[in-house]
Formats: sequence, structure tokens, C-alpha cells
Amino acid sequence: MGEGVEWALHSCLLLAWVGDGSSVPVAKLAAFHALPRAYLNKQLQALVRAGIVSSTPGVRGGFRLARDPARITLLDVVSAIEGPQAVFRCTEIRRRGAGAQAPDSDFRLPCAVASAMHRAERAWRRALAAETLADIMQAAERAGPSAPRAARTRLEQAQI
Amino acid sequence: MGEGVEWALHSCLLLAWVGDGSSVPVAKLAAFHALPRAYLNKQLQALVRAGIVSSTPGVRGGFRLARDPARITLLDVVSAIEGPQAVFRCTEIRRRGAGAQAPDSDFRLPCAVASAMHRAERAWRRALAAETLADIMQAAERAGPSAPRAARTRLEQAQI
Repeated sequence: MGEGVEWALHSCLLLAWVGDGSSVPVAKLAAFHALPRAYLNKQLQALVRAGIVSSTPGVRGGFRLARDPARITLLDVVSAIEGPQAVFRCTEIRRRGAGAQAPDSDFRLPCAVASAMHRAERAWRRALAAETLADIMQAAERAGPSAPRAARTRLEQAQI
Repeated sequence: MGEGVEWALHSCLLLAWVGDGSSVPVAKLAAFHALPRAYLNKQLQALVRAGIVSSTPGVRGGFRLARDPARITLLDVVSAIEGPQAVFRCTEIRRRGAGAQAPDSDFRLPCAVASAMHRAERAWRRALAAETLADIMQAAERAGPSAPRAARTRLEQAQI
């Protein structure tokens, strides 16, 4: 998994704490976490395409959450950044080499290896779908009740 | 996830069907699935280090399963090939940029983003640990009862 998921989740958390429909320029978001601006922008655009954040153009433009944090799951963000493909990619090696001689009827059912790997992966996706950005906000605020206020102050002060 | 996991799982399945303590040379395993021999050997060596297969040197040497298929889980194979690190790698970006100004006490507890991602990943690992090579053999044999015999015949005939 690329570091884009970490960047996207932390950006969403920050946008959730900014709240009230304010847009935050990518330069501010990048400065806040000391991330490369162009590459962060690429991740944010992926979140826009997935309907997780929305962007406003112009001088006072930027990014804000497109929906309630309780309706943004970890799976939404992971899928937006990493794409829809499975982590385990079956290349049907059972049909290669010696398998190329086997009759097609041998491959009527999905490969047992891929099926087992994908079953386990569905457990991961279900767990990702069960956690929301609102849950992360609550956990972070339990750990540090002043976290949202501190984040807003530091975001304002962040040097672009 | 690299393709090494798919190669390793199919190689283990084949070794399980060969059974009876026979060793299979890497050249045969590579020919069976039309895989590059040197790179497959690298994956097999990782399985040896993890105690999943054992290797016998010499002309009649090769690889065989080191333990019962019911005692080899998908997690064993994934961990052997991919290493022990988490799929989601937390780089503590909360401490970078604006976070560098925050007091250490703000970071006493683990990051809520990383905790949530790792919790979901544990669900995946639990599911991987719950499936064994014996389960995959059974599923493959339900789909094609002659699969083990056909695999052994094709392995014998595989041109090195």
C-alpha cells in the first residue's frame, strides 16, 4: 500500500476538524504535514473523483469534505487512493505451463488459491468499511481533547 | 502484494499433492507453472527460512513440504514471502510539519489513523490464519477430484 492512503486519511481528518464548509488550499494541507504539494494534490484529486472531498477553484478555493465524516469509511478512502483491484492479484498460473494441456473444464470453477486469498481480503474490506472518519475523530479526541482546536490553529499558522 | 505469494501458494499446493516426502527440483516446479526458475527459487528459499518447505541438496534433491498441509496457513505463506511488516505503513506524519511544534505529550497514544488501519488489517490476518493449505487442497479436489493425480502426472511430464 502506498503512502498516499496515510496522507489522504490525515488530510480528511484535518478537513473534518476544520469543518463548517471552509475550503483549505492544497498548499496549506501540504505545509501542515510537510508533504510534497504536487503529489498530495494528486491524492486529493482521487478523493474528489470518489466524492469524498470537493474542490473549489480560485484564490479562496481549496478542498473540503464532501460529506459527513460518519459517512466516510476507511474503505472509501483506501479504494479511492489504491483503486478497486484486489491486493492479491490472481494471474491464473494454474493455466500456464503444464496446466495449458488441461481441458477447459478443469478451470470451470475459480482457482481455490485465489478464492481463499480473496475471502480473507473481504474480511479486511469489511473491517475497513466498518470504521469511519467520525470514529477516527472520536478516538483522536479521546486521546487529546484539544486536538481539533490545536489542528485549526496550526493550520492557520502553517507557512505556505 | 507481489506475485511471489501466488507462486508460493501454488507451489505448496503442488508439493502437497506430490506428498509422500518426495522432493521436487525447482526446475520442475518452475516448468510446471511456466515461472522463471531463479525468481521462483528465491520464493522457495523464503518458504524454507519460514519452515514451510524444506530443501534437499544434490542431484535427486529439491523441495518438499516441511509440515502437514493442515498446519500451513495462508498467513504463514504471506508472511514468509511478504515479510512481517504491515500493509499500511504509518510514517507518523502527524509529527511532521505543523505537528513538529506540538508537545511530545500529544503523541503519547498511537495515531488514531494508524490504529484504525491496523485494526482492519488484523481482521485480514486473522482470516488468513484461519485458512490452511489443507482447506485449499479440499476445495480444489471438490472442484476437480482428479486434480491431485493430474498434477502429479503433469509434473512428471514437465520438460525442464
